[in-house]
Amino acid sequence: METQEKIGDKMNIGVVGIGLIGGSYAKALKKYPYTIYGIDNSQETLDYALNNNIIDIGTSTPSEILKDLDVVFLCLYPNEAVKFVRDNINFFKRGAIISDVVGVKRFMINSLDIYFNDEVEFVFAHPIAGRETIGIKHSNEAIFHNANFVITPTKHNKEESINLIKTLAKQMGFKNVSLVSDVQHDEIISFTSQLTHVIALSLVNSDEEKYDTSMFIGDSYKDLTRIAMINDTLWAELFLKNKDFLLKQINKFENQLDILKDAIMAKDINKIQELMRSATKKREKIK
Amino acid sequence: METQEKIGDKMNIGVVGIGLIGGSYAKALKKYPYTIYGIDNSQETLDYALNNNIIDIGTSTPSEILKDLDVVFLCLYPNEAVKFVRDNINFFKRGAIISDVVGVKRFMINSLDIYFNDEVEFVFAHPIAGRETIGIKHSNEAIFHNANFVITPTKHNKEESINLIKTLAKQMGFKNVSLVSDVQHDEIISFTSQLTHVIALSLVNSDEEKYDTSMFIGDSYKDLTRIAMINDTLWAELFLKNKDFLLKQINKFENQLDILKDAIMAKDINKIQELMRSATKKREKIK
Repeated sequence: METQEKIGDKMNIGVVGIGLIGGSYAKALKKYPYTIYGIDNSQETLDYALNNNIIDIGTSTPSEILKDLDVVFLCLYPNEAVKFVRDNINFFKRGAIISDVVGVKRFMINSLDIYFNDEVEFVFAHPIAGRETIGIKHSNEAIFHNANFVITPTKHNKEESINLIKTLAKQMGFKNVSLVSDVQHDEIISFTSQLTHVIALSLVNSDEEKYDTSMFIGDSYKDLTRIAMINDTLWAELFLKNKDFLLKQINKFENQLDILKDAIMAKDINKIQELMRSATKKREKIK
Repeated sequence: METQEKIGDKMNIGVVGIGLIGGSYAKALKKYPYTIYGIDNSQETLDYALNNNIIDIGTSTPSEILKDLDVVFLCLYPNEAVKFVRDNINFFKRGAIISDVVGVKRFMINSLDIYFNDEVEFVFAHPIAGRETIGIKHSNEAIFHNANFVITPTKHNKEESINLIKTLAKQMGFKNVSLVSDVQHDEIISFTSQLTHVIALSLVNSDEEKYDTSMFIGDSYKDLTRIAMINDTLWAELFLKNKDFLLKQINKFENQLDILKDAIMAKDINKIQELMRSATKKREKIK
């Protein structure tokens, strides 16, 4: 099976869970000549997806269509994604590629490695994109524009399968596709994603609401706290499944906070300015 | 002198320091029939402001024009703003209103209260708007659109003078104008503004750059760290001049961080979700 052949018009792509991310995947891929299959528990969601031309075919019974799907994207929360595979492993097409969107990769790989010798191939991935909203009605392929996409290959992956997911990511509008190990992924993402959410939550929770905060904020407060409007089901899972790295990052961040706090306490203007210049320099590298 | 009279076409408004904020003040007020005077040490800045029709008249010698100005906005860093008043107190017009843009109000009021019996009137204000850039070339009145503006009255203020500054703030595009005491201002602003900058700085400084961070970030990291690109001269002053409140806010934030960290460490999913829901609820109130 060649990549070029699979990327042909006839490829059948399944999206399991047509929510914010799944709906956005479907919308983005619908622009290409693939047939898009939607799988969702909710009939309302399936109806919406069909009526709005987000998918071509929809079902709440995976066993009916999995045998026809060349690529299946599991757009589910971590535990759900693993359960879906366990429940449906026998229904997948031989040679199917199963990908996911989960923000913790060691968990996914450890949970599913018992299936790595089956006649399906897992290409684990993490599209780093989201919004403070849930559900298909908020799905929008624009969230992938210029976003990062990370693939965490296993030793069972064929190069052409990775290339296929890479191509689909690019087609969906992602800018950068990186390949790193699951451990590397979980380490860096605990910093860039989970720590930022921990900070936003703690910042908002430290607001005693003694004043009408809305009247005294600028863009900085709004920007730093937007992600405090959080999907608690998903994110509690993500925090706990990346607990070791996340706790390390919180500690590192607290150390930096203490360094700055000490400098303020000591009125050490040189140290404060040095910390500011170092942060400015580091941040300027980020596009 | 009535507010209505002062707001007439003939009002002469001075902007001292035509940088990011001062330039934006001038641009915003230039849309009205006032005559805008610019005062700046840099001839290059004055030339740019005149050539781009940002001001009507410009000088680096305040004594020449202060006597003609009905309202003077000090768009300078805290220490500079105080120094400007000290150096030029005898040149202001009788009855002139002097306002400022400084983000710490106790300092301003304490530094200038010796002049409160003079024939000028200080209406201390804080436009909560900014950008990660400096200088007149980045000035843009759009930064005031929908932004908050805070006035910290003193017992020497006439109602009409406060109303005048309020009117000018609305004319510049600010959405909300609040009146609070200098102490209240410094307390709430240490949370919404200075603490957010402390957090952004510490977050960026805790990046060990083991990976190419750019490839693993989403909007959350970008949003939380944008303000880490900071004007270290200005912000070191702001941190130190609001040290007492800022240190309290850092401690409160660290307490919240520890509560969440402990819940993660204990794998207490209920507690984690409770903290997430409380933050979501608080943040949803912010427009």
